Amino acid sequence: MAINLSNLFNSINKNSKMGDFQDLDHIDGVSISTTCANLYSKNRDDLVMFYFRKGANHASVYTQSKLISENIRWNLKINKKKIKALLINTRNANAFTGKEGFKGLKILAENLSQELTQKQKIDEQKPEKIQPNEILFSCTGTIGEMFPTEKIKKNIPELIKKIKYTQNKYIWVKAALGILTTDLKPKLAMEECYIGNKLVKIYGIAKGSGMIFPNMATTLGFVFTDATISSSILKQLLKENIQKTFNAISCDGDTSTNDMVSIFATGEVSNSNLNSSKDNKLSDFNSSLFRVLLNLAKRVAADGEGASKFITIKVKNCKTESDAKKISFSIANSPLVKTAIAGEDPNWGRVIMAIGKANVNLNSKKLFIKFGDITIVENGKLATSYNEDEAANYMKEEKIDITVNLNSGKKEFTAYTMDLTKKYIEINSDYRT
Amino acid sequence: MAINLSNLFNSINKNSKMGDFQDLDHIDGVSISTTCANLYSKNRDDLVMFYFRKGANHASVYTQSKLISENIRWNLKINKKKIKALLINTRNANAFTGKEGFKGLKILAENLSQELTQKQKIDEQKPEKIQPNEILFSCTGTIGEMFPTEKIKKNIPELIKKIKYTQNKYIWVKAALGILTTDLKPKLAMEECYIGNKLVKIYGIAKGSGMIFPNMATTLGFVFTDATISSSILKQLLKENIQKTFNAISCDGDTSTNDMVSIFATGEVSNSNLNSSKDNKLSDFNSSLFRVLLNLAKRVAADGEGASKFITIKVKNCKTESDAKKISFSIANSPLVKTAIAGEDPNWGRVIMAIGKANVNLNSKKLFIKFGDITIVENGKLATSYNEDEAANYMKEEKIDITVNLNSGKKEFTAYTMDLTKKYIEINSDYRT
Repeated sequence: MAINLSNLFNSINKNSKMGDFQDLDHIDGVSISTTCANLYSKNRDDLVMFYFRKGANHASVYTQSKLISENIRWNLKINKKKIKALLINTRNANAFTGKEGFKGLKILAENLSQELTQKQKIDEQKPEKIQPNEILFSCTGTIGEMFPTEKIKKNIPELIKKIKYTQNKYIWVKAALGILTTDLKPKLAMEECYIGNKLVKIYGIAKGSGMIFPNMATTLGFVFTDATISSSILKQLLKENIQKTFNAISCDGDTSTNDMVSIFATGEVSNSNLNSSKDNKLSDFNSSLFRVLLNLAKRVAADGEGASKFITIKVKNCKTESDAKKISFSIANSPLVKTAIAGEDPNWGRVIMAIGKANVNLNSKKLFIKFGDITIVENGKLATSYNEDEAANYMKEEKIDITVNLNSGKKEFTAYTMDLTKKYIEINSDYRT
Repeated sequence: MAINLSNLFNSINKNSKMGDFQDLDHIDGVSISTTCANLYSKNRDDLVMFYFRKGANHASVYTQSKLISENIRWNLKINKKKIKALLINTRNANAFTGKEGFKGLKILAENLSQELTQKQKIDEQKPEKIQPNEILFSCTGTIGEMFPTEKIKKNIPELIKKIKYTQNKYIWVKAALGILTTDLKPKLAMEECYIGNKLVKIYGIAKGSGMIFPNMATTLGFVFTDATISSSILKQLLKENIQKTFNAISCDGDTSTNDMVSIFATGEVSNSNLNSSKDNKLSDFNSSLFRVLLNLAKRVAADGEGASKFITIKVKNCKTESDAKKISFSIANSPLVKTAIAGEDPNWGRVIMAIGKANVNLNSKKLFIKFGDITIVENGKLATSYNEDEAANYMKEEKIDITVNLNSGKKEFTAYTMDLTKKYIEINSDYRT
């Protein structure tokens, strides 16, 4: 890439609507390579490989779509506890590409496993053969176009050549940039925490943009830790933490064929044995993992296609969490709410509309609505203190918080989304041209 | 209104994307008045009254929202079999206006019923008093603003003054224009049909624009017939025919607090007695009513906010109608499909995405997709005959037909929608300013 990464890095870190992100650095057992396979017409990295020299335990959650991409189909067949590499390509979703699309992945897996076996032999004098079914794939981009197997295969030697056993903050940003499609900003997050008395790292990158609802959509999220955690415990931790993070964001109500969020544990830190995901020793790790996932998920929502504002919708004091979720997503997915926010119009009537259509029984007389700290509706009526100018002023902020209080229970849910702008239409009506 | 209705009428009739509409004319027992109560800052009719001098049997279907407007609350309390008038105002939805909003309707109903009683006494020497609970209300516009009771009340004498007992095509267009909010075009439809050997008329007008899903949303639809049909039969006919007409359209997935579709029968034509909605003598009327409702519903979709294209989505050969409906609305409500169509991009991958996210089990190998007459997907793969240029050329049409064939059953559903354009964002981010 012909850009100055150091400058880019500083400008990203300064200008993010979501606040700065911390530097990701070296994490034992993870090697990152990126390259440009010319999948886009423009010159940018579009292939990213994560290589786990000692293997990694892993767990993933995938799209709920009934039409899944070929790489998801491939990954679902992987039954190895440890995998050796994850290869991510952009521009082509490898969805609805049929047998040829799946065969393409097989060719790539065979080639990549051979090349990695070779590399391992030279660098580490390890004779073990890496198998094709130790490779995971992640694809994102246009659906239904022929999968560019040959273009990708041609660039595998380059990816291998670039493997370094020590990572730095720049290679993480390159990886986060390399997996983007129409996103504008790379998304990175990190935490450090303890398992027993051992300090471990949790690093993550993500991509999002359109099709972000529900259950992740075109979201890709990859989280890495040097902790020693089994695949089954990783699976449990990921499933629990995804609900209020990646499954709490919405861009446009569309869902992709390719979603995946994965976690990889290299086991380089020898922490104490863990019995289950509920093991007390995991409590710090668990909350840190939640923060990494939430941080990434929020960055995905904030950078949703055409977004000019980041919107947090908290629905509280409901009878059930499901009620709270229905209402928060009804608001988060309402084009009328989202366009009003784009227009900086405190059109709270549309929030009422979205609450009403959520199919949740409620007592309108108990309803409270706030925009930021401004009470809009109290006891089901326009607040006596309501001042349109004050509300209009609040709508100029870049982060908009909407709080809905049903005063009928103790459950809550928070959804994250962005406004709906002309830019969204521009991006999506011109996507392929 | 300072416009030449005759010119307007001709230009509307010539330019409609939905084809010409036929002239609505006189229908016995219906009187229409329209006036400008200055509810908008601009000079336009915003109050429309339908007066039924001999009363009318009636039936309505209303929004499914859990937060309904005050006029819907009023209408739901009406238990009179015959009503005397329907008053429609725009600009203000009378939703979330609380006790004051409801009280405003009471004041208007009392005033209007008195004035109509007076009118009846003078014109027809009828001594019967018209009651407030013989008046129905329909409101559309902004939610949560104080209901302009006084402004409307002041204009009731004008509405009364304008009552004529013979209608013509111009007054129907004025009525259809007077109920619009952000719609661009008046929506009218008509049929004539037989009940037994008696010719009867079915006339209808509608408004739509945003918030058009599901179950009608900000749609208002009013249908009038001179047939003699009981309110209970009208109710049954309306409920049956609404499913594949007004409940088959979607604009943006939003649902209003104010939706209502009503049918009124003046009983001026003495057709033979009817036993039930299944009475054989009603078969011609039933299919004519369906055509009127479908015609209006399509016009609503075609004039959805910012629409540049009218889209018909037919999903066929499904196991259940519910499956077909889920898939058709998943496509109809997908912002990514709708923006692609706005961009005239045959991005069929997004149709795949929308099918996949509909949560319907399907065999992708049996899937066929057509755009117009062009086969895009056959047996779950890109058609061998597929030619991107040909498809791109088709996307330039104003009417786009998408057919999805699951080849797994015999049920089908057709949804109607429009594309998603920058204009939609413009309309909805500037709505109140």
